[in-house]
Amino acid sequence: MKIPYTKMHGLGNNYIYIDLFHFDMDEKFFPEVARQVSNVNTGIGSDGMIVIHPTDAADVGMRIFNKDGSEGMNCGNGLRCVAKYVVEKGIIEAEHFNIQTRANVVEAVVQSANGIVEEVTINMGAPILQRSLIPMVGTDVENVVAESFAVAERTLEVTAVSMGNPHAIFFVDTIAEAPLHELGPVITDDSRFPDQVNVEFVEVVSSKELNFRVWERGSGITQACGTGACASVVASVLNGKSERGNEVTVHLSGGDLVINWDLDGTVWMTGGAEIVAEGNYFFPD
Amino acid sequence: MKIPYTKMHGLGNNYIYIDLFHFDMDEKFFPEVARQVSNVNTGIGSDGMIVIHPTDAADVGMRIFNKDGSEGMNCGNGLRCVAKYVVEKGIIEAEHFNIQTRANVVEAVVQSANGIVEEVTINMGAPILQRSLIPMVGTDVENVVAESFAVAERTLEVTAVSMGNPHAIFFVDTIAEAPLHELGPVITDDSRFPDQVNVEFVEVVSSKELNFRVWERGSGITQACGTGACASVVASVLNGKSERGNEVTVHLSGGDLVINWDLDGTVWMTGGAEIVAEGNYFFPD
Repeated sequence: MKIPYTKMHGLGNNYIYIDLFHFDMDEKFFPEVARQVSNVNTGIGSDGMIVIHPTDAADVGMRIFNKDGSEGMNCGNGLRCVAKYVVEKGIIEAEHFNIQTRANVVEAVVQSANGIVEEVTINMGAPILQRSLIPMVGTDVENVVAESFAVAERTLEVTAVSMGNPHAIFFVDTIAEAPLHELGPVITDDSRFPDQVNVEFVEVVSSKELNFRVWERGSGITQACGTGACASVVASVLNGKSERGNEVTVHLSGGDLVINWDLDGTVWMTGGAEIVAEGNYFFPD
Repeated sequence: MKIPYTKMHGLGNNYIYIDLFHFDMDEKFFPEVARQVSNVNTGIGSDGMIVIHPTDAADVGMRIFNKDGSEGMNCGNGLRCVAKYVVEKGIIEAEHFNIQTRANVVEAVVQSANGIVEEVTINMGAPILQRSLIPMVGTDVENVVAESFAVAERTLEVTAVSMGNPHAIFFVDTIAEAPLHELGPVITDDSRFPDQVNVEFVEVVSSKELNFRVWERGSGITQACGTGACASVVASVLNGKSERGNEVTVHLSGGDLVINWDLDGTVWMTGGAEIVAEGNYFFPD
């Protein structure tokens, strides 16, 4: 089966995109095509496959399939790529529209010039700050801000934030000296986080600029974690290091994201998306 | 720069192919395009890039660029893909033709049906059996056949063959019990092999069928090593387990190759090649 595809990435997080507005593929094939196309040896090579499809629930729908063929819930970097794609291909003419994911409907705003989408802003929702909902086990104090955290014979200070997934943020003086390899794998499995946790080390360069490194639960060190960048800016505000309503640039290994926790409570994430290649994938059937 | 490409693989060994018969690209770009397109995060993802080009020295020429942009000499799996490509695209109408590589000019024979190339046979040249040319340090006995080889407190029997690169072959009763992880990294750096060595464990299923696992020098365990499969069949003949002039099927992790060390001294390697995808790659410039 010859399948038209586009490969895109956001901060190095890369997927094969299948456009069901222009190509018809039975959904029964999605898991197996995702598995095969993601394999760099015998397929194209990617973190998975995203299907862009018509829907009644929003302006456009997306479904994410991981490398192993399982279906994922949501992906911030993938949302930016979908937004770029549907605008550049003329599927959507508005600059402000909604994308349906398996998790929820998400608001997207594109900045474009001469038909090219340069940046995409995604509504990442409000952070969840209640300890029991993050979830984190501990004292009766509701929010976890600069709380003493003993681990591996040290005492650190943790700020915990959920952006739909749990994050533990630790501020460091210089990002180069962040103990990511040493403490990432220990803290992610710490019993105080019943659902495990994403571990972020953050250097505050200024109130509007953070350096960021992440150990993602289940993945280890990754180039970029959109929800982690959001959580870090929320944590920076909670600790008096940044201000609500201001744009904060977060430098991740894979590139930059601009995050704004606005005065209404919503976290907005702005970043780029790149089209890498397009053509036909020959699915062996 | 929009670059038309085809991705192909032979036994999982995968490259991005650029066809200079139909697209003009200055060679100054080759190393950087190879480096970027090979990156699975921000490019397409591959083991490297192969440029197919017109030449006066043969029917077609190929140049191989590794993931890091350096230029390679030759690649058995890549040769089969090039042969498939030039015949299926109508660049060459013969079924028997020559391909120029940086190392030498290589003879290729395709078996095709209805315009599809199903198998490609490559002339891999004659094996080199003299100890000093393999190279291997040791006794004055010229050929290294079932020679006692002490390593890691064991005594094995080694047969050594060069196919342009050095191979040390060890026969085992069952391939599942081959000590690849344990001895591969030790033998590859053994001082008896001044240029290091590719380490192969081979189970003789019958005189016409071998099971094969390889530790490649500089790479470790790989899915497939064409010259290693050739060397294993030569070693099987030298040890009286296979016969010259017969086709021997070698089962590698990535798939099968059929090897024939013919009565004239040439080793012929036959295997498949697959087109994975084609389209345009957007090189950021």
